[in-house]
Amino acid sequence: MKIGALEAGGTKMVLGIFDEEGRLLDQTKMPTRSPDKTVPDMIDYFREKQIDKLGIGSFGPLNLNRHSPGYGSITATPKLDWRDYPLLQTMQEALGIPAEIDTDVNAAVMAECRMGAARGCENAVYVTVGTGVGAGVYLNGRTVHGLVHPEVGHMLLRPHPRDPMPGGVCPYHESCLEGLASGPALGKRAGKDGAELSDDDPVFTLEAFYLAQMCVNLIMTVSPEKIIIGGGVLQRSSLMDLVRKETVRLLNGYIQAPEITVRIESYLVLPELYPISGLLGAWLIGKDA
Amino acid sequence: MKIGALEAGGTKMVLGIFDEEGRLLDQTKMPTRSPDKTVPDMIDYFREKQIDKLGIGSFGPLNLNRHSPGYGSITATPKLDWRDYPLLQTMQEALGIPAEIDTDVNAAVMAECRMGAARGCENAVYVTVGTGVGAGVYLNGRTVHGLVHPEVGHMLLRPHPRDPMPGGVCPYHESCLEGLASGPALGKRAGKDGAELSDDDPVFTLEAFYLAQMCVNLIMTVSPEKIIIGGGVLQRSSLMDLVRKETVRLLNGYIQAPEITVRIESYLVLPELYPISGLLGAWLIGKDA
Repeated sequence: MKIGALEAGGTKMVLGIFDEEGRLLDQTKMPTRSPDKTVPDMIDYFREKQIDKLGIGSFGPLNLNRHSPGYGSITATPKLDWRDYPLLQTMQEALGIPAEIDTDVNAAVMAECRMGAARGCENAVYVTVGTGVGAGVYLNGRTVHGLVHPEVGHMLLRPHPRDPMPGGVCPYHESCLEGLASGPALGKRAGKDGAELSDDDPVFTLEAFYLAQMCVNLIMTVSPEKIIIGGGVLQRSSLMDLVRKETVRLLNGYIQAPEITVRIESYLVLPELYPISGLLGAWLIGKDA
Repeated sequence: MKIGALEAGGTKMVLGIFDEEGRLLDQTKMPTRSPDKTVPDMIDYFREKQIDKLGIGSFGPLNLNRHSPGYGSITATPKLDWRDYPLLQTMQEALGIPAEIDTDVNAAVMAECRMGAARGCENAVYVTVGTGVGAGVYLNGRTVHGLVHPEVGHMLLRPHPRDPMPGGVCPYHESCLEGLASGPALGKRAGKDGAELSDDDPVFTLEAFYLAQMCVNLIMTVSPEKIIIGGGVLQRSSLMDLVRKETVRLLNGYIQAPEITVRIESYLVLPELYPISGLLGAWLIGKDA
């Protein structure tokens, strides 16, 4: 059996062909243009490879309400060409095979839980901090959808008293996580690209403060067994340790679990499957389709 | 079959006897003294009633890690007599019947989801705002435990710029939900007991701001199909509507779901099973034991 996996991103599409054991048999990439240009190319690729099932991890927001006629559509994305585009339905009808969809970050957390940094966990959160901030939430052995799906990047936070930009950069929310801690927020606060900063630049103190608040709020709300933080901003290797220290400081001993009080370095971790956690997640979604 | 239900609170114990259909056959209450005084009385009651199974919804924090020898114990509670007390194990061994335990708020959310304000929902959160703030989280049809269990009351929030007490009253955390929005916080801010305030007292503007931030963060993190808010502070009937308006304002159109944008009054709701949601939840837990 051949399983197709699609990691649908706002910039590029990553397409893979896996066998049932998760061996990658073939892979290709294409830029994300408008659906009428991109989708036929993706269908051609998967058709030629004669896949039996398809899994999709996609940028969102997505309609994941199975009782809705729009199930599997991309909804209110700022990429206007893709707004209300029925991605799952179009791929499924063209290929005539079982197919399933979830958010890109839910795909990633599923892969990290089943075969990566959170192997063996029934409860974990995967956060990616880059141009935006997004998270996949996996609880009781399944990804969380609920009414829509998690949008952790827009959780509201307490600004740091020394933040020169306490409102953040999100056009929707004052002092939300993405507005305060995304790559663009960090760059704007520093006045230059994040990559040009030294490890001890004070903007990383603020960055760690916000990511630690996020960790605290995730711990208080869903009590994950592990929190995985990846994405471009975490390429700065010294940052993770600052986040760990700040999380412990903010929790202030309230959660009495040795995973946090003693072994925080194996509780707040980097992803293991980067950069293919999303594609592997799409394979897992396809396998279950 | 007779199912015993125990709602174990820090002030009182509520014990009920149900049949399989959920009819309450008998009920009693007793004050919560030390375990060596209270537990034998509870065992006597359930033994005399010849129950076949027992469900417990208890104050916490609890050890809910099934792989731990301390499973079913109360852990780091400020009620020192009860610290590390093996509540589930003691009751189960004395009665010799199947028994199961969850937090009081998880019991309540389970009852509200199966037979109350969130009937039919697979994903909901039940928050109680009183002396403390706690929440039960029910996702994908089950309550969430994870590493420990949710402690939503200690989520960190952004203080209101006009709050005279922006740090809150929690001894552990600066500006956490419980520290800013519990009954004692509200009373301290007002300088008198909350019950003496008029509906238009400005402290309710702040209270709604904090409860709405909590709702936003719950929506962003777990995307519940419904949020139920109960507890003493919500006895103030005008408050719920302020929270709804403030939640919509803070979300600022970001979550495009008619449940929120059009029908918020049936999305943020009061409990339906108050004051017996906890006891009914304990019955459900016992039934599944």
